[in-house]
Amino acid sequence: MTAFSFNKLVIFGVGLIGGSLARALRERQPEQAGQRGTVIGVGRSVSSVERARELGVIDSFAAIGDDAQLRDALAGADIVLLAAPVAQTQPLLTRIAPFLDDATIVTDAGSTKSDVVTAARAALGPRINQFVPGHPIAGRESSGVEAALPELYAGRNVVLCPLPENSPADVARIEAMWLATGAVVRQMSVEQHDRVLASVSHLPHVLSFALVEQILEAPDADLKFSFAAGGFRDFTRIAASSPEMWRDICVANRAALLEELDAYTAVLARLRAAIEAGDGAALEAAFARSRKARTEWQERGGKAAAGASPSK
Amino acid sequence: MTAFSFNKLVIFGVGLIGGSLARALRERQPEQAGQRGTVIGVGRSVSSVERARELGVIDSFAAIGDDAQLRDALAGADIVLLAAPVAQTQPLLTRIAPFLDDATIVTDAGSTKSDVVTAARAALGPRINQFVPGHPIAGRESSGVEAALPELYAGRNVVLCPLPENSPADVARIEAMWLATGAVVRQMSVEQHDRVLASVSHLPHVLSFALVEQILEAPDADLKFSFAAGGFRDFTRIAASSPEMWRDICVANRAALLEELDAYTAVLARLRAAIEAGDGAALEAAFARSRKARTEWQERGGKAAAGASPSK
Repeated sequence: MTAFSFNKLVIFGVGLIGGSLARALRERQPEQAGQRGTVIGVGRSVSSVERARELGVIDSFAAIGDDAQLRDALAGADIVLLAAPVAQTQPLLTRIAPFLDDATIVTDAGSTKSDVVTAARAALGPRINQFVPGHPIAGRESSGVEAALPELYAGRNVVLCPLPENSPADVARIEAMWLATGAVVRQMSVEQHDRVLASVSHLPHVLSFALVEQILEAPDADLKFSFAAGGFRDFTRIAASSPEMWRDICVANRAALLEELDAYTAVLARLRAAIEAGDGAALEAAFARSRKARTEWQERGGKAAAGASPSK
Repeated sequence: MTAFSFNKLVIFGVGLIGGSLARALRERQPEQAGQRGTVIGVGRSVSSVERARELGVIDSFAAIGDDAQLRDALAGADIVLLAAPVAQTQPLLTRIAPFLDDATIVTDAGSTKSDVVTAARAALGPRINQFVPGHPIAGRESSGVEAALPELYAGRNVVLCPLPENSPADVARIEAMWLATGAVVRQMSVEQHDRVLASVSHLPHVLSFALVEQILEAPDADLKFSFAAGGFRDFTRIAASSPEMWRDICVANRAALLEELDAYTAVLARLRAAIEAGDGAALEAAFARSRKARTEWQERGGKAAAGASPSK
């Protein structure tokens, strides 16, 4: 890991994601890394950023609605991280734009990228070159600054989706920041990112929410819940995720998500036909394929198969 | 916990389920419980039961195909447990029937019950009163006797689905056996059992297998797997389950499973329409309901809501 130094980092939304970045840059740096940069939090509510300061996650905070505070916070900032819900990207960037120094790099942590880039172009206009889209893939069900961990990103993937307008130096700087958290940084296009995440993250969340919803609608829901065991527990763990965040993701990434959902529904219809026909051989073959792929994925430590690469 | 004593317990299929029962009855019993019963394993392959004997899980074993060995094993048995795949119920019981003492109680551990009862009626004929259908709800992905644990059933649900022909004394004896493993024993009808399990266990397995299958079919499958993270891991943990076992369950419980699958597909279609329409309010409301139910379930320790009962 390389040390990463900065003068001033401004984080909009100091919850799990923003708080963990601040803690990682603070707590994972070698003592001799020299100067310790200032971390400023900006939040919708004062209470959340106050709590972040109490916990020592940030040094000070600014109120988003106060021009003077916001100008002070952003003056001379090296990096601005947006770690608020993706739906707030455009209003946030519109609010930030007038106070943005030329040398400041803005990045984000949104789970979807097409919508974020559209919002950023609308809000930043000619300053779009200063915006490097990013996505640290490191969610937990728990949220809020109390759940922030210095090791949240260690060994996890962070995707950067550089824009044609970005300078290589700016992209390298954001990459260095994430590398200092222990993350693995990978680059791909905005479209590729959204398709991949729709498949392995957004779709499973929708499917998990849907199962709980379906049981809730059953006349014997209580009885069913009382016999739910380990399989149900793991399958529905992500159904305890933030409704607001997942509403935004579903709306923001709807095109890619609908494509994955339809492909999934087609597979499910095929399995349904095999169940109805009592076609044990077809079911066993499909289950065996899935088991093999899932087991191999686990054995690789959740990594790609040999030879796989984002450019593929 | 009450001590449970027996003279001879015969287990057909000494894997995770059968092996854990044997270990629980051995290792959880107080020293002063008196006489230690004999546990005999019967397996399709000699190697698996030999391994169980080496591990001390059973005292001796018999080959299913050897009449003399099977007669000896079953003579004077208090209890016979079938812990082999459900599809083997009828051939196994047909094989056992000629050697069955009048006082022996047969029970099973099958994940489905309608098909098991049909098979038992066909195989046992007038001896059906000796068969008490059961289902310990305590799967793990790992299987085989090496995975057997004395505490596998502690705090878990075991369902008994007594038949009209069963004597209350026989049902009480099987209940006492499971109580000695630390399990919570509950009774319900065969139909109720199959509907509940289709909903909270069988359907999630099919949905999980289907997700891995769908990703496998994608042209960028490797890339997708390489970005799969914690949500995917938990959602698909059960897709590493035994293809043979889940084939049998899907076929055996197809009526109840199709009903749950169709109800699920309807919920999914509703969520799809909301995603397509960009109806954030509908999505958030559904996700919030699911999150609330899932969180409350977790807080109850995975139990029913107050007032819920199997007779409901």
